[in-house]
Amino acid sequence: MGKDVVLAEGERLDDLLTHQLHIIQSREVFSFSMDAVLLARFAAVPPRGRILDLCSGNGVIPLLLTTRTKAVIDAVEIQPRLADMARRSVAANGLEERIKVYEGDLRDFHKQRGHGIYDVVTVNPPYMPAGTGDQNENEHFAMARHERKGTLDDIVAACARLVRTGGRVAMVHRPARLAEIMETMRKWKLEPKRMRFVHPSAESEANMVLIEAVRDAKPELRMLPPLIVYNEQRQYNEELMRIYYGEQAASAAAKETGK
Amino acid sequence: MGKDVVLAEGERLDDLLTHQLHIIQSREVFSFSMDAVLLARFAAVPPRGRILDLCSGNGVIPLLLTTRTKAVIDAVEIQPRLADMARRSVAANGLEERIKVYEGDLRDFHKQRGHGIYDVVTVNPPYMPAGTGDQNENEHFAMARHERKGTLDDIVAACARLVRTGGRVAMVHRPARLAEIMETMRKWKLEPKRMRFVHPSAESEANMVLIEAVRDAKPELRMLPPLIVYNEQRQYNEELMRIYYGEQAASAAAKETGK
Repeated sequence: MGKDVVLAEGERLDDLLTHQLHIIQSREVFSFSMDAVLLARFAAVPPRGRILDLCSGNGVIPLLLTTRTKAVIDAVEIQPRLADMARRSVAANGLEERIKVYEGDLRDFHKQRGHGIYDVVTVNPPYMPAGTGDQNENEHFAMARHERKGTLDDIVAACARLVRTGGRVAMVHRPARLAEIMETMRKWKLEPKRMRFVHPSAESEANMVLIEAVRDAKPELRMLPPLIVYNEQRQYNEELMRIYYGEQAASAAAKETGK
Repeated sequence: MGKDVVLAEGERLDDLLTHQLHIIQSREVFSFSMDAVLLARFAAVPPRGRILDLCSGNGVIPLLLTTRTKAVIDAVEIQPRLADMARRSVAANGLEERIKVYEGDLRDFHKQRGHGIYDVVTVNPPYMPAGTGDQNENEHFAMARHERKGTLDDIVAACARLVRTGGRVAMVHRPARLAEIMETMRKWKLEPKRMRFVHPSAESEANMVLIEAVRDAKPELRMLPPLIVYNEQRQYNEELMRIYYGEQAASAAAKETGK
């Protein structure tokens, strides 16, 4: 680790399960989920260049991306508490030279950084429209889950503004909203080019979609093989293990189950 | 069978592999493929009512649908030769009371039949834009494969005009064009509600998408489990067998392979 970690009350330092990375989390705010990990693996990233992560939360996606690229990574998070946690996680891993965390609103981030300056934009946005869900929910969770600080249209527009022509936008979302997502992407000149559905099991409906669009590209979508989370023994599938924990863990697990 | 079948030169009578149905085909024109069979099984159909099949070809979808519903089924096909084959296949199976084949253009079919009169519309359209592909191709094949008599937009517009509010449109197409399909459907007030991808194997990209939209519905898409065609032994998967040949054949095959 980079240096001593300062944890606020209620915070803990979690292992990111790869490359000795660690991340600060707290029960009081939204923690990262499998969605973010799968997006960080799914996104095609250049070996160098500039990457932007929107709706970055506690910064899990930028942290994971540092294992796959030497690019400079900017992160934008609107909640001050999460942006602060992300910044301290970056410092805890000694990655201050590679990740810069901005506390701000994605709707006007182009005003400070400019248009079309990123090679890749990643985003794990709130999944639910504003006004839905539990009204008694903790404010931090509500903002992470509901489009209270920007609709899907705002988010896609921001991605389109900030990525360069030919650059890629990678998003994770719920399949329930896919028609709206694809229409909105095309409206903002982001052409969906590569997509993958995540199914809890081979027999169940998808509960997650990974989608990559290219700015100003011609239409032609590749639909990747389904990603199945659990096998018939109700354990993580081998591919999921590999994505989550890396090659070594996957082969160890495969040996154990006699595959 | 209903009555004696009159076959033209080069035509043969094929078994439809279910309910003793037969179909007239010829090497000289486009024969039905797995796509049509999967669509005929995927489409949700009411027990009674009115169904329309556009781009009907030799009528395979209406013939297969008669095993799942007592609805009256209209079929539209623009190629005179295919419409004639479809009509004779209907007669060969004694289904003249249930299927009516119209030779005509889907772009003005509403002029003779009216708007919003169908509960369900099925369509297995040409997959490729006009102007692409082999220029030396037989005219019958070219029309089945390329949008020479109506673009995707024309076809989706026809579906939307002919189906009632709350009625369903079921389409099979290539995933490569999915973004365009979803955008076009939404433009014509057909909301994608249920979708399934067909993958040749569990590890391969999808080469077919089954999509069902509801006229004037609210957005919320269900992404069904992937349909895998071949198993690891490179034989038809059990589910595919069941869809294709019915329950009996599938359990016989399962026994044989010791499952």
